[in-house]
Amino acid sequence: MKRIVLTLSYDGTDFCGWQVQPEKRTVQGTLERALSGLTGETVSVTGSGRTDSGVHAAAQVAHFDTRSAIPPERFAPALNAVLPADVSVLSSREGEEGFHARFSAKEKTYRYAAYLSPVELPLKNRYAVRIDPRTDVSRMAEAAEYLVGTHDFSCFLASNSSVKNTVRTVYESRVFRRGEDVFFVIRGNGFLYNMVRIAAGTLLRVGEGKIPPEAVKEVLEKKDRSLAGITMPPQGLTLLSVEYGSPAPGKEDENGDDPQKSP
Amino acid sequence: MKRIVLTLSYDGTDFCGWQVQPEKRTVQGTLERALSGLTGETVSVTGSGRTDSGVHAAAQVAHFDTRSAIPPERFAPALNAVLPADVSVLSSREGEEGFHARFSAKEKTYRYAAYLSPVELPLKNRYAVRIDPRTDVSRMAEAAEYLVGTHDFSCFLASNSSVKNTVRTVYESRVFRRGEDVFFVIRGNGFLYNMVRIAAGTLLRVGEGKIPPEAVKEVLEKKDRSLAGITMPPQGLTLLSVEYGSPAPGKEDENGDDPQKSP
Repeated sequence: MKRIVLTLSYDGTDFCGWQVQPEKRTVQGTLERALSGLTGETVSVTGSGRTDSGVHAAAQVAHFDTRSAIPPERFAPALNAVLPADVSVLSSREGEEGFHARFSAKEKTYRYAAYLSPVELPLKNRYAVRIDPRTDVSRMAEAAEYLVGTHDFSCFLASNSSVKNTVRTVYESRVFRRGEDVFFVIRGNGFLYNMVRIAAGTLLRVGEGKIPPEAVKEVLEKKDRSLAGITMPPQGLTLLSVEYGSPAPGKEDENGDDPQKSP
Repeated sequence: MKRIVLTLSYDGTDFCGWQVQPEKRTVQGTLERALSGLTGETVSVTGSGRTDSGVHAAAQVAHFDTRSAIPPERFAPALNAVLPADVSVLSSREGEEGFHARFSAKEKTYRYAAYLSPVELPLKNRYAVRIDPRTDVSRMAEAAEYLVGTHDFSCFLASNSSVKNTVRTVYESRVFRRGEDVFFVIRGNGFLYNMVRIAAGTLLRVGEGKIPPEAVKEVLEKKDRSLAGITMPPQGLTLLSVEYGSPAPGKEDENGDDPQKSP
């Protein structure tokens, strides 16, 4: 039995998220069907975490176990030959002893993308959301810095989540502008369900002048979801990368992503 | 009767190009139907030129004539309220005396986008085409410079075009790289059918080392389509902008785009 690690990219638009659901087109389900066809086995794929319906991935990581004689590196081209155009395997390799796509993950980086425009732009809307051109991006950048550090992120937790430990560490949180495009990049040891999308909505409230940048600190301290912004739409969110350190097979999930849901 | 000028953007993926065709979803047809609904008139829309099936526009220009009392600037929001998500009107205004979207156009700028990757990337494929990561982009940049100037571009003319005058002036032609993205931007007084896509295919042959950069000069001089590269796929092509100078109502079409076809 070998554990194979896949790095993959997908356009989330036409997927009902990562996780297998009956009768729904999901990334996990699409991969499992392709792998079962290639190996002749019933293959179960484990991702680094789930992504919601409409959320994209530039480099998601997943693993599966197989007795197949296919060399580990050959899974990428073999899968790409059968997968649909909206999911692609960037690489495949044999996992080191104890590797687990979810439990061994040390860091994840997400990007939320928006663009400044008075009208909807068809060439932007698939991977970003329109925001008012009067939005003050420098205030958003100032506010984003308050997210760095180890905090109880209850304020950014979707109300239907049952996760116990809501403390996460954010290593990097920044907002920057490139022409009309505005990006919010956040890197941390794990994310609560909808945390990035609610954080983006809160930063947008700052950019709109509804709350001052310092209010983000207060929102965090008061741990009150009602003080934060709206959950921004899924198409602006992309999982950029997942970083792994040394394997930690027995690691508790408490410090990682909410196992039930995606950020 | 007023002449209204629209600047519009569209994602060409799900359109069978600009021009009205029976039973086909086209940008022109979609606009004409929306305008007829708004004005109660039978409206005919004239674009700066046609774009092929799958080709995108960041800022296409078009005009139509109407007796409607709707103020010129209100057409943009009124149209956006009824148009589908893949076409958007950026602005609307009354055209100056003699303005004609096609005949008054002085310059157009197109961009052909590619990305360097060993595998297809779902998050890039809608607006760019994959090219081999070993492609020599600096050689492509060198080759692109040979296109600047007034030339007979017969070598880049699709074989099914019947255009008579194949001389065009290219003011700017450059290839540059941003990370894994490669862009070919070309600005000129008009383009032959498929000219930009064939020029891009020819530059790619240079980047692949099949012909030296100087060969582009020879391809132009010999006026032989068979010496040029392939017609690159439509999804990499975007009409970036159309520039207008003083109106020239009686201008011959000879120096503009091939009236039958798109670049």
